[in-house]
Amino acid sequence: MTDSPEGAPGIPDDPPPFPAFEVLGSEQVYSSPWCGLRRDRVRLPSGGEIEHHLFELPEAVTVVPLLEDGRVLLIGQYRYSHGRTHWELPAGRLAAGEAPQDGAARELREETGHAAARWEGLPGFFPLNGISAHYAHAFVAHGCREVGAPEREPSEQILTRAFARSEIEALLDSGRLQDAFAALPLLHWLRRADLG
Amino acid sequence: MTDSPEGAPGIPDDPPPFPAFEVLGSEQVYSSPWCGLRRDRVRLPSGGEIEHHLFELPEAVTVVPLLEDGRVLLIGQYRYSHGRTHWELPAGRLAAGEAPQDGAARELREETGHAAARWEGLPGFFPLNGISAHYAHAFVAHGCREVGAPEREPSEQILTRAFARSEIEALLDSGRLQDAFAALPLLHWLRRADLG
Repeated sequence: MTDSPEGAPGIPDDPPPFPAFEVLGSEQVYSSPWCGLRRDRVRLPSGGEIEHHLFELPEAVTVVPLLEDGRVLLIGQYRYSHGRTHWELPAGRLAAGEAPQDGAARELREETGHAAARWEGLPGFFPLNGISAHYAHAFVAHGCREVGAPEREPSEQILTRAFARSEIEALLDSGRLQDAFAALPLLHWLRRADLG
Repeated sequence: MTDSPEGAPGIPDDPPPFPAFEVLGSEQVYSSPWCGLRRDRVRLPSGGEIEHHLFELPEAVTVVPLLEDGRVLLIGQYRYSHGRTHWELPAGRLAAGEAPQDGAARELREETGHAAARWEGLPGFFPLNGISAHYAHAFVAHGCREVGAPEREPSEQILTRAFARSEIEALLDSGRLQDAFAALPLLHWLRRADLG
């Protein structure tokens, strides 16, 4: 996770920091290679005490893959959580010690069989910071070419399709693109494409 | 959660649905008024069996509050998960049986002391659908006026500040706005404002 420079011209500063909660106790409710759940007891600056739950996940990466003809490669993916198959970006969790861009290149390769000529960082995000410190790094992968067959996990049901920019905008504006790991980086990418 | 109409002109259809995983068993690992954790055993269409974890949370709402002078009201909020205080939108979870727009109006009132003259729906999103069916409804609250003092929970450390549209764009483009519940609806709202 990276902070943006304070006081850069035209960019409002972050709010003045509030006092941190004091941790009185921390219980690892659940732990697994996939996810964890922690329950902390904290003292509020106001003096009260509350329980605060935390979902634990490794950092993630999500990639906007641009083909050499300018189209965007999306994956059609089945999600067990809600049971639907919808359009997403190639994304996944970082391996231990893996650099974010390396993880992005790996997920792009594994899920689509493509490799990029050039990488560009996009703003990252906290998907659910009310209950998790989970952070996602986002990238644009420029000049993507197919370099082999996808190497998907048995649990991954994925197809790929290239979309024109106008189709991406229609998917976003219609509300059809509901995966935050897809919609958020694509919306940032569209602004950059407009600005620059 | 609402689906967009299939086959609307110019809007690409969803991908053809993949077969659903078959649920072989489901274990409620943790349950509380705040969140739950479920661990399912599922059979893949390929025949293999895996464990699939699910973080359980009620549906949420997030609000882009527009003041009568056109500025956007953000809240500076402390988040225990990562320890930082940053700019967000008023947001929160729906109460049982609460209609999304009612919940949005309630969160706006509780966190900022404001009420809206008119409500407009924005595309909703799944913040983390790789491991949770959690869904967030998003709205634009037009013509917001202060109607009283905020009614914040003891655990909420929040200040409010109005931002010009150019400041919102600077926060987004600089990567300073890292809360997905804030960045995603604001980016959708900016597109609508541009499209007119």
